[in-house]
Amino acid sequence: MDVAILGGTGKEGSGLALRWARAGHRILIGSRDRERARTRARELAAHLDGAAIAGLTNEEAARAGEVVVVAVPHAGHRALLEGLRDPLRGKVVLDTVVPLDFGAPRLYAPPPEGSAAEEAQAVLGPEARVVAALHQIAAHELKALDHPLDADAPLCGDDPEAKRVAAGLIESLGVRALDAGPLAMASVLEGLTALLVRLNRRYKVKGAGLRITGLEAGSGR
Amino acid sequence: MDVAILGGTGKEGSGLALRWARAGHRILIGSRDRERARTRARELAAHLDGAAIAGLTNEEAARAGEVVVVAVPHAGHRALLEGLRDPLRGKVVLDTVVPLDFGAPRLYAPPPEGSAAEEAQAVLGPEARVVAALHQIAAHELKALDHPLDADAPLCGDDPEAKRVAAGLIESLGVRALDAGPLAMASVLEGLTALLVRLNRRYKVKGAGLRITGLEAGSGR
Repeated sequence: MDVAILGGTGKEGSGLALRWARAGHRILIGSRDRERARTRARELAAHLDGAAIAGLTNEEAARAGEVVVVAVPHAGHRALLEGLRDPLRGKVVLDTVVPLDFGAPRLYAPPPEGSAAEEAQAVLGPEARVVAALHQIAAHELKALDHPLDADAPLCGDDPEAKRVAAGLIESLGVRALDAGPLAMASVLEGLTALLVRLNRRYKVKGAGLRITGLEAGSGR
Repeated sequence: MDVAILGGTGKEGSGLALRWARAGHRILIGSRDRERARTRARELAAHLDGAAIAGLTNEEAARAGEVVVVAVPHAGHRALLEGLRDPLRGKVVLDTVVPLDFGAPRLYAPPPEGSAAEEAQAVLGPEARVVAALHQIAAHELKALDHPLDADAPLCGDDPEAKRVAAGLIESLGVRALDAGPLAMASVLEGLTALLVRLNRRYKVKGAGLRITGLEAGSGR
């Protein structure tokens, strides 16, 4: 699959690029600066012999990708998407962004729409098929390619087919995708990242992750 | 420990009562109706030979308990606590309440304070030592006494000593208590219940639970 990663030069986007390239997808790293995207694409491809990783502007990547992953800091989220309404029409948009305010006790600081993913849907309009997921998987975990990811990946969205496509892409990272319902659930999924940040701080670790138990058939009583 | 459970005649409160009584705590079941509390206390004690379970009004239970657990439906949460400001002064108040609206896509429907636990703190004033926890453990799981609970229990609050007391009580249920930071984190913990409700529906189970991975020393990279 051709996977565009907007903000693909960042840590989270680069980690996703590595894992997905290894799984056999063609990766289009997007950045505001095409040269920066190309440099990062070359660096990432050097890690994985023969991996198909190209560098483009965010707009070029958004046009070319079959699935478009949003992995920018929340500060630039709205402005980025406002410029991409046309290229993202009809696309599966996998939004991984978590609005965090590290100076606030609550940490999770969603925009007025209720979550970053609902902000994306509001900005892009109803024709974009927004799915929210992958908020809880840390960049350094993604980067450690020899290490399997020990986490589940809940996702939510309003378009069942888009969720099916996103779930397949997510599972190619080696994690279990879990359907958590409509896009209105995104604030819960994004907020979970604040919990993991708190636990990482409190227990002096870097890799707190989420697992859901009790989903196997017959496990409920 | 003398543990008061406000709303102890309900499913969640009764399940907690059984598990804590078995762990050796003295349980004070609170209800608006003292006779109802006594009847439920007798029923629960009959499950556990010789367990110390008494039935009282919510106010009597709030006065007598060393720790006071709030396990009422959110619809009655604010009104209950408004009547208990005096008995709960200085007490460790363990709030387990989750405001859910089953008719709304978002499911989680917090009050203006941001969460049920912050509502409790606002109503009770700064002298009550509110801790939020146990939102995600289902009543039918608690009731199945022969079945170990397969879940972690994040908690949050602004009083470190109250969190220590609550963590001990929570761990006597046989789950791992995890310190998730200040009370401002309560909306994330309460919201997690909405995720588990969604997963129970989607995967046709009853016992979706939360586990946190990667907290062991040296597990983070």
